[in-house]
Amino acid sequence: MTQSSEIPARIYTAALIVIGDEILSGRTQDKNIAQVASWLGVQGIRLKEVRVVSDEFPAIIEAVNALRLRNDYLFTTGGIGPTHDDITVDAVAEALGVPVIVHPEARAILEDYYATRGGLTDARLRMARVPEGAGLIPNRTSGAPGIHWGNIYIMAGVPMITAGMLDALTGTLEGGLPVLSETVGCWVGESEVAALLQATERAHDGVQIGSYPFFREGRTGSNFVVRCVDAEQLATCITALSSALEALGREPVLGGI
Amino acid sequence: MTQSSEIPARIYTAALIVIGDEILSGRTQDKNIAQVASWLGVQGIRLKEVRVVSDEFPAIIEAVNALRLRNDYLFTTGGIGPTHDDITVDAVAEALGVPVIVHPEARAILEDYYATRGGLTDARLRMARVPEGAGLIPNRTSGAPGIHWGNIYIMAGVPMITAGMLDALTGTLEGGLPVLSETVGCWVGESEVAALLQATERAHDGVQIGSYPFFREGRTGSNFVVRCVDAEQLATCITALSSALEALGREPVLGGI
Repeated sequence: MTQSSEIPARIYTAALIVIGDEILSGRTQDKNIAQVASWLGVQGIRLKEVRVVSDEFPAIIEAVNALRLRNDYLFTTGGIGPTHDDITVDAVAEALGVPVIVHPEARAILEDYYATRGGLTDARLRMARVPEGAGLIPNRTSGAPGIHWGNIYIMAGVPMITAGMLDALTGTLEGGLPVLSETVGCWVGESEVAALLQATERAHDGVQIGSYPFFREGRTGSNFVVRCVDAEQLATCITALSSALEALGREPVLGGI
Repeated sequence: MTQSSEIPARIYTAALIVIGDEILSGRTQDKNIAQVASWLGVQGIRLKEVRVVSDEFPAIIEAVNALRLRNDYLFTTGGIGPTHDDITVDAVAEALGVPVIVHPEARAILEDYYATRGGLTDARLRMARVPEGAGLIPNRTSGAPGIHWGNIYIMAGVPMITAGMLDALTGTLEGGLPVLSETVGCWVGESEVAALLQATERAHDGVQIGSYPFFREGRTGSNFVVRCVDAEQLATCITALSSALEALGREPVLGGI
């Protein structure tokens, strides 16, 4: 997949707001950053920035307004359940300056879902509330749908439900060229090859090299991740990096260690 | 541990910046948010906000300057290694408007560490660079120390090394009352008890209740996490919540499910 590169390809970006005191207290290990990031990569969209904020109006509103304008897409996870600490919809609506309404289709979905589960109570009806003008994101796991308003995608916090919503969105967002990546591992300390890495990156336009050291079995090693939107440039850089490591007497391991 | 509560206790806050393309690409699952959050809780400091930013100067500088002034403490993880993509020190120095210098003690530590490991090369010497005026955070795991400048704590990205740096900082930061928490679990959908949760939280000043639903073994349950700085208030609220669940014919499980 090469591209004629007279005009640089448009880069699509996204931001993510993870909403929830449980992440900030350390009670819950976040899983959504990695899953949203990986999914975006496949859509050809780059996750540029993430904020984790508390279940408080000012924190959510500030983050929404800072991030929605400077990225192509803004995703949120968390805070769309039926309880008092679920304030994402109200906070996003306030950030957008629109009222909160009950979405008729969301209400119908919940009526159907809870028909055999005790009925649609006031608390459950909270999950049909959306910022005015919103569409819905299908929820294939449980009842309450996600919400789509302009370039904002409001999703659940429970990772399994988030995954289902991402799956429902697959292929629906305009993206650019996906970032391709390949890894070369090596039993070498990154400090021993720092100059080599920098020179290799500089010699290959449009390519980024990340260096990720590790310590295993009492030995020091590193994985070098080469990223690029062009498969040919990527392959050329991987070959150059591998040769340079070999020239130092170090064995490169394609795919990483 | 009760407090006479005429004057509300001072609340100490911290922010965290996670620096690294590997988190934003989804390649690496972040572990530092949860470990820094848990450690801060024990120090009596509340993690208020987290940002994950790329290995780029403008992103790091914006986050540093937004967060360092409005929190008692600012922590960063990542980007302090020897390679070209490690730019945290330079970016923080630029945010602070101070030059980068080689810290004599950091240089001595690295000289010693690399004496039997091939010597202190230019790349390795990069890890002795600090914003002028900085102190060091001991690194008990590998050579290069962390950095302390004003209320900013610059730590490694590799979670095991970060853990050692946090350990070295234990007890050195002024904090307030630690937030205590207890969990009541129940095999009940959170939407069935939403009103009860809200009423219980409102009836107990200074107490927050978070609701975390789960699906296991084909059944719906929830954990309700009650948080408070006062042990007596916490116990009173836990008792009230448990009684209210029992009154609904639902068995509360102390400690959570």
